[in-house]
Amino acid sequence: MEKVEIAFYPGVERDGFRTHVFIKNAKGREGKVQAVILAAGLGTRLGLEEKAYPKGLLKVAGRELLLRHLILLSREGVEKFVLVVNPRNRKYFEEFLARYPEYRVILVENSHPERGNGYSLWCARLAVSGPFVLTMSDHLFEEAFVKRAVRGQGLILDRQGFYVDPVEATRVKVSEGRVVEIGKGLEPYDGFDTGFFVLAPEIFKAAERLVEIRQEISLSEIVQAARIPVTEVSGLFWTDVDTPEDLKQARKLLIRASVKGAGDGLISRTLNRRLSTRISPYLCGRITPNQATILSFLLGLLSAALAYFHTAFGGLLYQIHSVLDGVDGEIARAALMKSRFGGLLDSVLDRYVDFIFLSFLLLKLKPGGLLLAAGLLALLGTVMVSYTTERFKGAYGKDAYGIFPVLHYFPGKRDERIFLIFLFCLSGRPELLFPVLALLTHLKVLFTLTVFWRKRSELEEAQG
Amino acid sequence: MEKVEIAFYPGVERDGFRTHVFIKNAKGREGKVQAVILAAGLGTRLGLEEKAYPKGLLKVAGRELLLRHLILLSREGVEKFVLVVNPRNRKYFEEFLARYPEYRVILVENSHPERGNGYSLWCARLAVSGPFVLTMSDHLFEEAFVKRAVRGQGLILDRQGFYVDPVEATRVKVSEGRVVEIGKGLEPYDGFDTGFFVLAPEIFKAAERLVEIRQEISLSEIVQAARIPVTEVSGLFWTDVDTPEDLKQARKLLIRASVKGAGDGLISRTLNRRLSTRISPYLCGRITPNQATILSFLLGLLSAALAYFHTAFGGLLYQIHSVLDGVDGEIARAALMKSRFGGLLDSVLDRYVDFIFLSFLLLKLKPGGLLLAAGLLALLGTVMVSYTTERFKGAYGKDAYGIFPVLHYFPGKRDERIFLIFLFCLSGRPELLFPVLALLTHLKVLFTLTVFWRKRSELEEAQG
Repeated sequence: MEKVEIAFYPGVERDGFRTHVFIKNAKGREGKVQAVILAAGLGTRLGLEEKAYPKGLLKVAGRELLLRHLILLSREGVEKFVLVVNPRNRKYFEEFLARYPEYRVILVENSHPERGNGYSLWCARLAVSGPFVLTMSDHLFEEAFVKRAVRGQGLILDRQGFYVDPVEATRVKVSEGRVVEIGKGLEPYDGFDTGFFVLAPEIFKAAERLVEIRQEISLSEIVQAARIPVTEVSGLFWTDVDTPEDLKQARKLLIRASVKGAGDGLISRTLNRRLSTRISPYLCGRITPNQATILSFLLGLLSAALAYFHTAFGGLLYQIHSVLDGVDGEIARAALMKSRFGGLLDSVLDRYVDFIFLSFLLLKLKPGGLLLAAGLLALLGTVMVSYTTERFKGAYGKDAYGIFPVLHYFPGKRDERIFLIFLFCLSGRPELLFPVLALLTHLKVLFTLTVFWRKRSELEEAQG
Repeated sequence: MEKVEIAFYPGVERDGFRTHVFIKNAKGREGKVQAVILAAGLGTRLGLEEKAYPKGLLKVAGRELLLRHLILLSREGVEKFVLVVNPRNRKYFEEFLARYPEYRVILVENSHPERGNGYSLWCARLAVSGPFVLTMSDHLFEEAFVKRAVRGQGLILDRQGFYVDPVEATRVKVSEGRVVEIGKGLEPYDGFDTGFFVLAPEIFKAAERLVEIRQEISLSEIVQAARIPVTEVSGLFWTDVDTPEDLKQARKLLIRASVKGAGDGLISRTLNRRLSTRISPYLCGRITPNQATILSFLLGLLSAALAYFHTAFGGLLYQIHSVLDGVDGEIARAALMKSRFGGLLDSVLDRYVDFIFLSFLLLKLKPGGLLLAAGLLALLGTVMVSYTTERFKGAYGKDAYGIFPVLHYFPGKRDERIFLIFLFCLSGRPELLFPVLALLTHLKVLFTLTVFWRKRSELEEAQG
């Protein structure tokens, strides 16, 4: 009847592909070791149909949408991917896959893409056995979403649709934990279809019944017919890319979503992040996170030198540096390029910038006696605020601000300190800065140590 | 025949005690969940026999020998202890156990202690099922020994006997991985009997045959008759306590053994530790590690203040502080009181002392221009040497010096810096210190970052 061609990509033997299902994977985790990604759509709305260039290969934050799927699902233990393409876009995917031989991908060709994405799923059946993750190549998910979604079952439902256009998004009606109806205009509805599913192979039985009686079948029809269960993953960023505007918007939202939970201080939350998340989308994909770190460092050094000659301008540039200092982390998370070394480098260079800026400010004042003592204390406190929480992370392996939100109540984080320094630079009385900063930072260290001390028994036990 | 009385201590129900064997324990680790500790000896050589005060309750480094067993074996997953006592010393153990209700201990009375420690083991049989750890209440093991020994099987053999008196220690002859002969004067021999065993219940069959035909039976005879396997754990500290001299010696050796692998710099290894390990035994059990940390901190501050008035004396006191700074860690490890908070506090206070000492030295010189700049750079570098490796630990959860021994090649650790400062203080030209220290410390930071950078891919992968 229908023709299904299967191509085998690196590491997959023809006979072997049916055996790798829902077993412990190489990393020793129990997980869904296979994923089906539908990429046979015709991409009409993006103006790509002439060349049949697939939406899944469009780049957001410097990475193809498909590559994001491969990276994020691999991190969750998926070891085998089944990619359903159409005859016209197949060559693009083959080129793409040749560049990433580290992923085991089985290419399945759907010769009748006009029969809909339900039919694409049907085409994947021969390459799949056991439970599997199903998602769409033109969808974009933030890392935290994928992490939670793969642990769910059935349709992954977003009840809040925080990042979603409620008119465009596909709505889902749920009853007794199962899908009842799916559709765009649906009223009333319980949430949105995220395009991410965790399915049992029984789904193909439901698909078969529809394939036999109908020409065009959508995935929604299959899912609805199978009354699959629903798992809620709300409040996290996901989107599908249909238009060029979607693509731009996705990049911005991805950056914005990457900021959550970063443990920012007050000035970061109210000022710096609002600016940096507007800048990052333009840099993302153009420079690497480590390059952003170095650029921000150089700008910080420049601001210090400038402060020696013109305090107010130096202070202003220092505050600008503080805004740009958020960019490296934002593009690293958005582009899935976060690295431990990058974080370490950023921290170390931040300490250098802070110390050097304050040193130049102090040197300019030609300090002696009390002012010098206050200056030295301010320098010490500035480093120690960071040292104390970093040392905590080293000792307990956990983020101090994450465990003890109470630490936020006492100001003195980097963004807050820099803003304070900036204000003193503008004020024309920079010498007053040092005693204030000395007091603030050492009290913050004391406060932090006190919190650690009070909770030391709980912490020790939690570590076993 | 023989009378065996069993007393049940907190958390052990009479019917339940036979069921807890070699299963996954509460912490999810597979382990030997039960341990037998023999404590029915008569303690004749320590002059304790009149009061029948048991050797296992003598204190080393502020903790009873028995308590050390309970602590260390619990950390390795042992959840049930069987303690074999004699009728005369039983009351002491009951008092002791009442003070530590967190350990589940079954007290087994050996009414015939004169029949030997083999008979004591025999008495334990009713309270044991499945494999178990066996050890002696009057033995002392360092933490690393217990960690490795519980993973072995049979008799734990020390081939080197690094800390052992070869004349007094019990020797073992091994053939094909099994015990052939055990005895004091044995020649030739393969190693020493550490008094630590990991046994299967079959050992009681061998014991039974001996109990039936002999009055007095030693553990060695049973072990020899059963030809149990042998596991080597060499080079770590263990000892048995027979005489008052043993007790003193054990305390000293325990401190010395606690220093290994602490990642010391050159001056620490060649000078500071030689002194601190002679001081610690006198403080161990008298002050807590955190108290030692605070005292060392205060001494450091005093040395800084003194340096302002008399550079050479201040420098000398600073170096003395550097020696005493090792005491807190030594007594913490020896007394099994190591805590993450203690390590954190020590690190933070060290940074304060270093910065403040250098600041006082700098303030005294009434610096301006270049000297002040050099001084500020030296202050920054001093903190950053530590910051960089601590931040590494926070990022990767591993000790940088542990993973990259190459870091040791570049001097600049705290002990080395302090010694350098001490020398400059003596030299009468302390102003030369600052450029030297600035250069040294920043080069060390650069070197460290370079090592991290080169290995960043391996590190990222190792973290999964």
